[in-house]
Amino acid sequence: MEPTAGRFELHKVGISGIRKPLTIRRPDRAVTLTTTFDVAVDLPSTRKGSDLSRNAILLAEIVDETTVRPVPSLESACVAIARELLVRHKYARTATVDVSAEYFLRRGITEERRSFEDYTILAAAQSVRAGTDGPVTVTKSIGAEALGMTACPCAMETAREALSEEFPLLRDPSMKSLPMITHNQRNRTRLMFDLSEEVEIEVDDLISTIEAAQSSPTFAILKRGDEAKMVIQAHRHPKFVEDVLRDLLRRVATGFEHVPDVAFVRARTVSEESIHKYNVVAAHQASLGELRHASAA
Amino acid sequence: MEPTAGRFELHKVGISGIRKPLTIRRPDRAVTLTTTFDVAVDLPSTRKGSDLSRNAILLAEIVDETTVRPVPSLESACVAIARELLVRHKYARTATVDVSAEYFLRRGITEERRSFEDYTILAAAQSVRAGTDGPVTVTKSIGAEALGMTACPCAMETAREALSEEFPLLRDPSMKSLPMITHNQRNRTRLMFDLSEEVEIEVDDLISTIEAAQSSPTFAILKRGDEAKMVIQAHRHPKFVEDVLRDLLRRVATGFEHVPDVAFVRARTVSEESIHKYNVVAAHQASLGELRHASAA
Amino acid sequence: MEPTAGRFELHKVGISGIRKPLTIRRPDRAVTLTTTFDVAVDLPSTRKGSDLSRNAILLAEIVDETTVRPVPSLESACVAIARELLVRHKYARTATVDVSAEYFLRRGITEERRSFEDYTILAAAQSVRAGTDGPVTVTKSIGAEALGMTACPCAMETAREALSEEFPLLRDPSMKSLPMITHNQRNRTRLMFDLSEEVEIEVDDLISTIEAAQSSPTFAILKRGDEAKMVIQAHRHPKFVEDVLRDLLRRVATGFEHVPDVAFVRARTVSEESIHKYNVVAAHQASLGELRHASAA
Amino acid sequence: MEPTAGRFELHKVGISGIRKPLTIRRPDRAVTLTTTFDVAVDLPSTRKGSDLSRNAILLAEIVDETTVRPVPSLESACVAIARELLVRHKYARTATVDVSAEYFLRRGITEERRSFEDYTILAAAQSVRAGTDGPVTVTKSIGAEALGMTACPCAMETAREALSEEFPLLRDPSMKSLPMITHNQRNRTRLMFDLSEEVEIEVDDLISTIEAAQSSPTFAILKRGDEAKMVIQAHRHPKFVEDVLRDLLRRVATGFEHVPDVAFVRARTVSEESIHKYNVVAAHQASLGELRHASAA
Repeated sequence: MEPTAGRFELHKVGISGIRKPLTIRRPDRAVTLTTTFDVAVDLPSTRKGSDLSRNAILLAEIVDETTVRPVPSLESACVAIARELLVRHKYARTATVDVSAEYFLRRGITEERRSFEDYTILAAAQSVRAGTDGPVTVTKSIGAEALGMTACPCAMETAREALSEEFPLLRDPSMKSLPMITHNQRNRTRLMFDLSEEVEIEVDDLISTIEAAQSSPTFAILKRGDEAKMVIQAHRHPKFVEDVLRDLLRRVATGFEHVPDVAFVRARTVSEESIHKYNVVAAHQASLGELRHASAA
Repeated sequence: MEPTAGRFELHKVGISGIRKPLTIRRPDRAVTLTTTFDVAVDLPSTRKGSDLSRNAILLAEIVDETTVRPVPSLESACVAIARELLVRHKYARTATVDVSAEYFLRRGITEERRSFEDYTILAAAQSVRAGTDGPVTVTKSIGAEALGMTACPCAMETAREALSEEFPLLRDPSMKSLPMITHNQRNRTRLMFDLSEEVEIEVDDLISTIEAAQSSPTFAILKRGDEAKMVIQAHRHPKFVEDVLRDLLRRVATGFEHVPDVAFVRARTVSEESIHKYNVVAAHQASLGELRHASAA
Repeated sequence: MEPTAGRFELHKVGISGIRKPLTIRRPDRAVTLTTTFDVAVDLPSTRKGSDLSRNAILLAEIVDETTVRPVPSLESACVAIARELLVRHKYARTATVDVSAEYFLRRGITEERRSFEDYTILAAAQSVRAGTDGPVTVTKSIGAEALGMTACPCAMETAREALSEEFPLLRDPSMKSLPMITHNQRNRTRLMFDLSEEVEIEVDDLISTIEAAQSSPTFAILKRGDEAKMVIQAHRHPKFVEDVLRDLLRRVATGFEHVPDVAFVRARTVSEESIHKYNVVAAHQASLGELRHASAA
Repeated sequence: MEPTAGRFELHKVGISGIRKPLTIRRPDRAVTLTTTFDVAVDLPSTRKGSDLSRNAILLAEIVDETTVRPVPSLESACVAIARELLVRHKYARTATVDVSAEYFLRRGITEERRSFEDYTILAAAQSVRAGTDGPVTVTKSIGAEALGMTACPCAMETAREALSEEFPLLRDPSMKSLPMITHNQRNRTRLMFDLSEEVEIEVDDLISTIEAAQSSPTFAILKRGDEAKMVIQAHRHPKFVEDVLRDLLRRVATGFEHVPDVAFVRARTVSEESIHKYNVVAAHQASLGELRHASAA
């Protein structure tokens, strides 16, 4: 129709928000996730449009099929889709796949209190073709988001000062480590790794790493004594969002030993402050090598 | 086209999610709200369709006009729209208008810390025509929603028990009223009155009533000492959602003396639990007369 | 603590937004749904608080268990929970359970284009105890929501008039049934039945009934010719929201023969108008008996 | 508390989702926007925490003040905040401010049909300090998002082919330009410029540029004949998301002559497909110089 002259290339053309059931193999069983996918390829200036029906067909072939033959992981599905996108869109040089899913793990404050807790898991893949028909390189991302709890160290300190006026026994040396009142709240923390195709990270490890960095993980089932236990645990580990994020980065830098330095780490934590109507946020991103270097300093 | 026979009457046909700026007169100044309206009328079985363009035109006439000539309140605009809907849709017997808006009040933990805090205000109106051309009766609703803070009384008690083992001084009589750690969180409480047209309620009073029922209101600006002050205040008024709701109903029953018994009250409170990934909720609705009767029992 | 005098009863106290995997048996396979539950009981004035941990424990027992032993349906799980809530909350007279879930069906414009399409399914149950220890009655609800497409009949007619000026051949009798341009858009329609415990409705039938009432269902996979086929189908069945809703009610009134007259039907349809920034809505509710009566008129 | 050794620097620590009324001066009047702000600074490894109360105080000083003394624009407020953040957080090297607001313009398909249409406007600012106490450089962003309508050119073509079988008159040469049925839908397009501090762009121009790139803008008030007019307009300008985005980029490259080549442009368009349950997306970003170069090719 219109001439190519003056036609712009476009970085991304694709479909967004397509929902699919996707089944992954876990050590003990197959788990079906409800997923939301975005898939796209670039569009060169020489081509008028992207054939978007190919994206929906490809998703149906790869994702719908998992309900019969489960795949190892969410990110392995992304890698397969990103690779195949460049096969079906010959004109494209890059393809991107992004997916999020709700994910459940049986967790509890004790063994007998275990029940399904909900998390969000994230995965992505990018494929890049060298030249018009060169080899294709694929990178992938894997991430998780977990809700937990933070207790504020600053208000804890000022509350102790203020209450010590009224309750002089608080100044007794034996009371120094008494957990003091402060504001606490829901904290939402996300951790994501950008990796080369062959490196594997277990999503359950991401979730455990996040939960270890919060003042406390949270659980659906808490009987009378359990609430106190969790509250005491959180108040013994009071943390600003800065602390949660740094603790998370430190755990990333010192754990995940099989992951190479070039892996890129993106982390973000949000506390839904109980004393404000707004949230408090901390975010950082760096290569795993940089984090390891900083951690060892 | 199709014959009337077997055609259903429909309770509501209208437009939804239409956004408009609406200016109301406050004692000291004019305030422009960003509002979201739903308006609808019923459709008798004798009529194929509702002329929906009349709804958009009517909203433009009444709401757009307020940016030039402010109206007294959000609910007075609803009443005017509900009444006029029945003028323009001759075939209709009922009309409904619902609106929500963000609303700001200057509040602070002290005078010098005041800044704009955000709330949601709600209004509605229903008009009913007696017979095909009888007189029109209009009722209205007015409501508000406020974020605040709750601290849990149960975990506070069990935490005191648990910590008393480790800190025997906590058993000293002088320590009995020491506020003890517990979980606290954002609480979202909504209060709505259904009223006859001539009764007025000030929306700022609804917000103050809600905030008084929470463990503590929350504020944008809290300097170092202020946080402790608010945290102590909340821990001295620990409340379950049940307590927040009952306290709210009691304040409604004993305040608002100018509002007649037939007014209907709807209240709901949600605590975004810091120790769980889910929320805790309490809700009730009753006539103001019933609440006054129960309160006096 | 506080005296009972002047303490209000509360209609609902419970937990909200708790997410769980729930597995149901389908004719051909087990399907795991990601669900969101609200559960609540009433609270008499004689009791200070509701023991909310029982709700989370009960959900864990009944819902978590389905991943091992699937249940027949979402609503059967609700009924079991509502019934058991009154066993565990001895003081309560009513219990309510509400749940929504994403649901997938393999559908296509033709057999070979089938892939998973996403829907929302809804269920609820209410249990009521007669007196303080009388028999318990349970009612349940089952519903579904489906996205489809509507094409506007009014703009179609006026577009034909306007274009006939410029294209006189449109006035040729042979062109009378040529589908004419109009605005079309996403339509979101919800249908819900309130039923006694023993009446069964298949959720797939609800979805099929909704899709039949829209101008056209929509599909993920549409190859070149398929798009035209769907567009022609939709333009040959242009529908206002009023038409979608009435068509839906008529199909409900004439299908579902095994469902008794006392069943209550709630229906709502929303078109996300392509020519406006706001939506257009129609809603109705009535007993199935009333609908059958009106349909036969 | 903890030692500095091994402590990570953090890119961003701040507050998020804080809502404020903000008043800007327009040529004819003052307009109050309901805004949502995110503000953050970086945190060096040498410092334990960021003093977040300063952010809330600063927002109160600058934004709350606008209700008394309006500012020229949303982005000028961002620039002032970003600059002042580095004054108050002495340790910080970078500060970021992001804001979105609902915005209304009186628009109509004709002069007499004008009413308020709603848009989203966006602004941001980043300030960077050279060294520990060097000069501060500020860049800013300004953007807008508008809903409009797209009609699909592909389904239009295949529908014409399919219908020509049944309606041979469609093959008459006079009918070649008859707008043919296709799917059309809501399109959401966003355009954002990253600029140096002194370059001004009028937000109303961004909105007009977006609306010109869609198949048609949309309006709240459409009387009977207007709907046909808009539908015909949209079907005479059928556009894929690729076309909308390229048209937008072309208009950006050839308009905005006062904006220098180094300005960076980010654009994204989403069509909420009426024939699918998912969306279709196109996105691109490039310097204005690159766009001008490509446009002139």
